[in-house]
Amino acid sequence: MVQVELKDGSKIEVQEGSSILEVAKQISDGLARNAMAGRVDGAVKDLRFLIEKNCKLEILTFDDEDGKKAYWHTTSHILAQAVKRIYGDSVKLTIGPSISNGFYYDFDVEKPFTEEDLANIEEEMKKIIKEDLPLTRYTLPREEAIKLEKERKEPYKVELIEELPEDEEISFYDQGEFKELCAGPHIMSTGKVKAFKLTAMSSAYWRGDAKNQTLQRVYGISFPKASELEEYLQKLEEAKQRDHRKLGKELGIFMTHDLVGKGLPMYLPNGYVVWELLENYIKGKEKKLGYKHVLTPPLGTVDLYKTSGHWDHYKDGMFPKMEVEGEEFVLRPMNCPHHMMIYANEIHSYRDLPIRIGEVARDCRFESSGTLKGIERVRTFCQNDAHLFVTHEQIESEFQSVVNLILDVYKELGITNYRFELSLRDPEDKVKYYPDDDMWNNAENTLRQVLNDIGIEYEEKIGEAAFYGPKLDVQVKPAVGNEYTLSTCQLDFCLPMRFHLSYIDKDGEKKTPVVLHRAILGSIDRFIAYYLEETKGALPVWLAPTQVKVMPITDNQLDYAKEVCNKLLEHGIRAEVDGRQEKIGYKIREAQVNKIPYMLIIGEKEVEANSVGVRSRKEGDIGQMLLSNFIGKVQEEIRTFAR
Amino acid sequence: MVQVELKDGSKIEVQEGSSILEVAKQISDGLARNAMAGRVDGAVKDLRFLIEKNCKLEILTFDDEDGKKAYWHTTSHILAQAVKRIYGDSVKLTIGPSISNGFYYDFDVEKPFTEEDLANIEEEMKKIIKEDLPLTRYTLPREEAIKLEKERKEPYKVELIEELPEDEEISFYDQGEFKELCAGPHIMSTGKVKAFKLTAMSSAYWRGDAKNQTLQRVYGISFPKASELEEYLQKLEEAKQRDHRKLGKELGIFMTHDLVGKGLPMYLPNGYVVWELLENYIKGKEKKLGYKHVLTPPLGTVDLYKTSGHWDHYKDGMFPKMEVEGEEFVLRPMNCPHHMMIYANEIHSYRDLPIRIGEVARDCRFESSGTLKGIERVRTFCQNDAHLFVTHEQIESEFQSVVNLILDVYKELGITNYRFELSLRDPEDKVKYYPDDDMWNNAENTLRQVLNDIGIEYEEKIGEAAFYGPKLDVQVKPAVGNEYTLSTCQLDFCLPMRFHLSYIDKDGEKKTPVVLHRAILGSIDRFIAYYLEETKGALPVWLAPTQVKVMPITDNQLDYAKEVCNKLLEHGIRAEVDGRQEKIGYKIREAQVNKIPYMLIIGEKEVEANSVGVRSRKEGDIGQMLLSNFIGKVQEEIRTFAR
Repeated sequence: MVQVELKDGSKIEVQEGSSILEVAKQISDGLARNAMAGRVDGAVKDLRFLIEKNCKLEILTFDDEDGKKAYWHTTSHILAQAVKRIYGDSVKLTIGPSISNGFYYDFDVEKPFTEEDLANIEEEMKKIIKEDLPLTRYTLPREEAIKLEKERKEPYKVELIEELPEDEEISFYDQGEFKELCAGPHIMSTGKVKAFKLTAMSSAYWRGDAKNQTLQRVYGISFPKASELEEYLQKLEEAKQRDHRKLGKELGIFMTHDLVGKGLPMYLPNGYVVWELLENYIKGKEKKLGYKHVLTPPLGTVDLYKTSGHWDHYKDGMFPKMEVEGEEFVLRPMNCPHHMMIYANEIHSYRDLPIRIGEVARDCRFESSGTLKGIERVRTFCQNDAHLFVTHEQIESEFQSVVNLILDVYKELGITNYRFELSLRDPEDKVKYYPDDDMWNNAENTLRQVLNDIGIEYEEKIGEAAFYGPKLDVQVKPAVGNEYTLSTCQLDFCLPMRFHLSYIDKDGEKKTPVVLHRAILGSIDRFIAYYLEETKGALPVWLAPTQVKVMPITDNQLDYAKEVCNKLLEHGIRAEVDGRQEKIGYKIREAQVNKIPYMLIIGEKEVEANSVGVRSRKEGDIGQMLLSNFIGKVQEEIRTFAR
Repeated sequence: MVQVELKDGSKIEVQEGSSILEVAKQISDGLARNAMAGRVDGAVKDLRFLIEKNCKLEILTFDDEDGKKAYWHTTSHILAQAVKRIYGDSVKLTIGPSISNGFYYDFDVEKPFTEEDLANIEEEMKKIIKEDLPLTRYTLPREEAIKLEKERKEPYKVELIEELPEDEEISFYDQGEFKELCAGPHIMSTGKVKAFKLTAMSSAYWRGDAKNQTLQRVYGISFPKASELEEYLQKLEEAKQRDHRKLGKELGIFMTHDLVGKGLPMYLPNGYVVWELLENYIKGKEKKLGYKHVLTPPLGTVDLYKTSGHWDHYKDGMFPKMEVEGEEFVLRPMNCPHHMMIYANEIHSYRDLPIRIGEVARDCRFESSGTLKGIERVRTFCQNDAHLFVTHEQIESEFQSVVNLILDVYKELGITNYRFELSLRDPEDKVKYYPDDDMWNNAENTLRQVLNDIGIEYEEKIGEAAFYGPKLDVQVKPAVGNEYTLSTCQLDFCLPMRFHLSYIDKDGEKKTPVVLHRAILGSIDRFIAYYLEETKGALPVWLAPTQVKVMPITDNQLDYAKEVCNKLLEHGIRAEVDGRQEKIGYKIREAQVNKIPYMLIIGEKEVEANSVGVRSRKEGDIGQMLLSNFIGKVQEEIRTFAR
């Protein structure tokens, strides 16, 4: 027996010469119930070697990223095994990796699987799971491996092996009668897959190349617990319903088209109503706080970005440069340099500070097409950006004002699921951070103090600050998907120096201001995506593109309906008449789908009573009302940003 | 004697063997008093040759572009002659061309000329004019010409000649003792220059290259009449005062900086106030007319512009393309294709038409750096653009609505110096124009009819229509500079076809809509330039960045002044307190320079009477007033766009 040390420091005794799989099984069955896959430091494949090299074994569970991958990868093997059991040689195997959510397997099929086929495959998978077949890893010399796959009539596998290095041992995993060319790792046995679902099908090309054979891709997901699968499928459905791309299309918010360009969304009339309201909303807030807004172009010279340092550090995130008359231009990834140049345009006295330059600023970044998503992840967007130029003494009050603005906006917009992160430097890291201990200490203490004074909770992240200064990030947890940074306020000691910014202080000395970069709504684009998903498209009354739909029951009420509509328009309410000759139920259903906050049903009764029948998208019929009362109600909801 | 036919058909007798100059002199003295320079067809340099080739002579006067050039070019020789007379060999001659307004001469000087030197030079020039020296042209073989300039110690001239082709005869012009290497043409004699002025000095590099010797450039202008010079200098001063670049800087409207990029202006806080007001003003007008606004990105794929045809016809006006992941993007020179794609995004019924898509749209065009000018001629700008998608029957009403909008806006903004041009096709030109006689005839008649019905005067321009349809342009004559097209409305039969746009007509048939491209304010950028120059920066109250400056006479009135300011702000009036400890006269002068429409002078008297002392930038002191009355007055001026 040999003693092996595990990653967590505990030790186990194993038979000399055991395979890693056997050790892993021992760990799984003995030390850790949930363990499903063994991972070793380095590329060690044999326990003897492992022991000689004094390597350590790590135990993975479904909670680990790599554990999940192994779990889903094994489920993909089960899928392939089931398909081979049912279809035999008529289906050829290709590849079946785990992906960020579940797995897929690409099959070369004679005719595409139907939904019914999928159900049969799922039945067979259940049997394989019940059989609880252990997964056994072994290797074969390359030639033998090729021979095996040729015998099994799996030409894609042969092709894959032939591309591996000549001297490499080829690893396989067996489960029962099923063999699969595979690097692993896998979980112990098929029985450990407790709940799974084949979720979708699509077509794919062998090696992703349209010139190759078309394959059928089957997607699936699996979990250790049935309840987890249930929850996942529910979330999937919910996410589908909330997906801003679906809502954006249904509600006429935006469109995309490859001819315009990937990642370049276009806001449609309804979308621009929302955009304009949000832009004016946040600019209005900022104006009251003394911000001055500017308008700067979405490009600059390469030299501008060399001056700011972006060209050295951020070039990969930028569009290619354009040469014009020997001068190099580039679409700007961020607008800080432009605002620095505006500050630098005049001589400033300490009396002028703080100077707050705001802009809903168009920026363009290169994002790989695979990561693009609706208006959430795009190649051009408008930031709700501002740069505050302050003295060191003003950091506190300006930072406080930014935090208050964030809290104020979140309250009005009903954003509740968020948390604050204060990113500080790591004082030990003398390389990354701008070297001025006093400046850092003062700034960090100031930010901490402000947050404590306001009494909000926050998490300190040591070593997470940018090299140029500490920052506050506000992380929101959207209804769908992962937490992301919505608002930010970053201190910057460096950029003002790079642009030689200065002000004349009380003592007549030239000093360098500090810059606070801040964004409240982040990018307007991403914010609309987020807000659509939060509200399932039922935007609050103040933001709804159409606030009121006026619906005469018959043509007899059409004139009165128009009159009502005009009165609403006069009061600044976005109203439309639905004068089509459709049944009122049809009109209501359509308005409901379009998430229109209020429907005014106009029948003979309403005309006689000089009133309106009010239907809310939220509460249904809320009865007859004088028009003036209804107008008052809507105006109040607009004023209070009621959701 | 030989008979020579002149360009105008008349004939003159000249001595056989006369030089062109002599013939020209004969023409000038005989046939045309104002003639100053002869121009011959081709490169003919000798009258015998001229007669043999049966060429014709053209008489030029100061009213001809080339006549002006010769006049100014000769004045530049007079300048050089005067300098040589005063400074001798210590000043070296280089070049002295005519330019679009006058001429310059670059001298290599030991020490720069002073203002006093310039005055002396002008005196000497007057003498040379009085001497009425004839200009005589002759040629020398290249080697002799080089020898001459070497003897004269003019190294720049030597360099210039050495670059001319080996076998070329080099031409010179003599006037009195002064010889100048020159291709001509020139006027007859120095005495013909009646009025001139040296207007400016600057430094320049030999051949425009910073690596070469620095030269001193002296600018000047001349005219046949003293009154013309007087008028020109007055206009120059006026233009300087009105120049939007000067006003834009003084009033904090915009800035430019080469590090940001040539032709990429940045709107400063005051400028963005104006911008935002104009944008909201025109969007508000459009909204009332049923326009739907959208927001589209400032770039697209090259394929989009291939589809629209711009790539083939407009590529030289575009920034270079950018390749990203094998896809080609380009900054858009115009946004029509984006709006076409928005229309194409949905199926339309005839009931949906007209559809009016509006956008204050960011476009980017390549303009050579020499043509750039402030915010008037730039490389990126925002168009007040819209595309109206209409049926053929709707052309009339939509066109009418556009013309009415133009008239309405011009009236409100006080634009009076304009005229309409209706550009029609040339029916004979079967190549240029989209071939559909009926469509053209109907469309042109419709436009004509609308203009006649409205009763506005317009000029028809046959053959000036775009290939895709007829158009109406509104030409404004600015206070400074040349007439330009401010508003336009263009019919387009072609673009909808290129994008396969359609609607389902009453009869169930798929039909192609007509597009009306229209812009009312043109580009917002250029409009601001135009409007600044029109108003000399004294923007009407509704557009003034700061509308009211409240000025306490002493600190005792500061609190009351702040109270007044807050009341103004509450009423939506852009007001500021000037609370500095400066004399009231100083504050007033500064506000006057900043073209602030109203100054409220707050003394003890005003505090006691709970009133304000009102001073208008236009009328000066207009007396004490209750604050509420003043607010009413300002609001009324805002409402009525009073100038």
